[in-house]
Amino acid sequence: MESVTLSSGHSMPLVGLGCWKIEGNVAKETIRTAIKLGYRHFDCAADYGNEAEIGAALQEAIAEGDVTRKDLFITSKLWNTHHAKEHVQEAIERTLSDLRLDYVDLYLIHFPLAMKYVPVTEKYPPGAQMDENGLPQMAKVPIQETWQAMEGLVDAGLARSIGVANFNCILITDLMTYARIPPAVDQVESHPYLVQPVLRRLLSRYNIHMTAYSPFGYPSYQVLGVPFDSKNFLELDLVQEIGARYGKTPAQVALRWNVQKGCSVVPKTVTPSRLTENMSIFDFKLTDEEVSAIDALDKQVRFNNVGLPFVWNSPLFD
Amino acid sequence: MESVTLSSGHSMPLVGLGCWKIEGNVAKETIRTAIKLGYRHFDCAADYGNEAEIGAALQEAIAEGDVTRKDLFITSKLWNTHHAKEHVQEAIERTLSDLRLDYVDLYLIHFPLAMKYVPVTEKYPPGAQMDENGLPQMAKVPIQETWQAMEGLVDAGLARSIGVANFNCILITDLMTYARIPPAVDQVESHPYLVQPVLRRLLSRYNIHMTAYSPFGYPSYQVLGVPFDSKNFLELDLVQEIGARYGKTPAQVALRWNVQKGCSVVPKTVTPSRLTENMSIFDFKLTDEEVSAIDALDKQVRFNNVGLPFVWNSPLFD
Repeated sequence: MESVTLSSGHSMPLVGLGCWKIEGNVAKETIRTAIKLGYRHFDCAADYGNEAEIGAALQEAIAEGDVTRKDLFITSKLWNTHHAKEHVQEAIERTLSDLRLDYVDLYLIHFPLAMKYVPVTEKYPPGAQMDENGLPQMAKVPIQETWQAMEGLVDAGLARSIGVANFNCILITDLMTYARIPPAVDQVESHPYLVQPVLRRLLSRYNIHMTAYSPFGYPSYQVLGVPFDSKNFLELDLVQEIGARYGKTPAQVALRWNVQKGCSVVPKTVTPSRLTENMSIFDFKLTDEEVSAIDALDKQVRFNNVGLPFVWNSPLFD
Repeated sequence: MESVTLSSGHSMPLVGLGCWKIEGNVAKETIRTAIKLGYRHFDCAADYGNEAEIGAALQEAIAEGDVTRKDLFITSKLWNTHHAKEHVQEAIERTLSDLRLDYVDLYLIHFPLAMKYVPVTEKYPPGAQMDENGLPQMAKVPIQETWQAMEGLVDAGLARSIGVANFNCILITDLMTYARIPPAVDQVESHPYLVQPVLRRLLSRYNIHMTAYSPFGYPSYQVLGVPFDSKNFLELDLVQEIGARYGKTPAQVALRWNVQKGCSVVPKTVTPSRLTENMSIFDFKLTDEEVSAIDALDKQVRFNNVGLPFVWNSPLFD
């Protein structure tokens, strides 16, 4: 498994297991299996609602000698309800308690949206408090305040690296004007239908590593009822033919494409054969022509668009 | 001429003369003519390089009794080089001196990009200082610092209302978490090829008035060499046919469309007949069906995309 060295100096494996939508009742077994198969990087979040199960798996794996803490790279994410400087500590303490860890390797601002505070003792994960119009109740917390609190977590040793998720170019540009500790990572949706060349260039210029979530595109969103009436890229002849050349699946081609463009990837699966498949992308290399051909599939389709009415009516990308 | 009452309590005429690219040698005469024809709202900016000529025209018009100061609505804009709290005052003082005014009616942050400071005594308008890679040298000034300095201008009586330009949804959302004085206006590119329904809804929810710049679309950018290989919307049968129904030009239809969607518009022209034409949009009303048909022309084409290499490589909208 190859790794990238982040601007913080810490090393992150290029493939992690994306834990969004891994149900609690299979989370523990999935994480144990993934560790046995060689996974060291786990992409978690308070909002995924499964950190306690993941923590149980991590503790067992360490206790049984499958892995040591320092070999693991555990990411978690600050939820929208805990952006205020006085709430960030509560959020990471609950996450660390659930994950049974003393620190996370990477802690991200999950979305650049501050929502009304919900104590973790009242509702967890906190979700969003809707108003009478079905819109989330926001909180008056500037991103700058949240970032300064994130920096405090590094100072306190609770997070080794910090970063952001779902930040677009102009938010990164503004963040870089005041960051004492620059973000090590921006985790964003990235796949052949959402290539984002401008964001990639900007992040590269600022030495911010890009992590690609939803690297397979539509399948992650179909189950949520997000509409989309084209073929997904995994079904396209182009992607299948490229895979056939190397004896690889379309999914492996999609992951490899992101990795060759400098990203880490956090595909989700609970199927052991696919856990192995998703890691096995370091024994082939796409040609420049193949990368360009996949780049050309770009539709600028953002499936995780929280601006769509079906989620929050809180546009981030418009 | 109809007006809108801004959240600041001040009233702004719905049609203003856009002064971008009005050459200095014709600016004075154009402004004098516009005032005689009934214009009261002038959309200026330090960066347009013609505030001194506009100021001379305003002073003459007031001296000769064509208009009084309180009948005028003068907008200007803070340039990128003057975002730091210690530079905002210098910027507005130079603008007020050039415009020969004691206050502006509306002062906007021109772009959410802080660039390296250039004293007004050194180069004016300051433009951008490029580095050896042809990229603008940025300044570490958070938008929050700039906004707080803008609020200070209202306190000091130098600006009656303040606002922003080229702010997208997420920047507005963040600004609203810390604004003591909320922005009265967001001035953005807006025309039938860039409808921005999500931004419109967000601004409306925050009671921020939207001013449409470049309401005619491509013609403003063709002269700058911006590539575009479709017909502009003013040439489309749909827009021409709608105009014919009311005895109006396609340009009047495009302006009326924006106004009916709740925007003010700042079309630019130096031709007296067109000055009159652009104001004459309050004696007809598009049907809902006509508005929807024009909405459907949306191509999400942003001509003033400073993310394109041809300008600054500083993406705002990606």
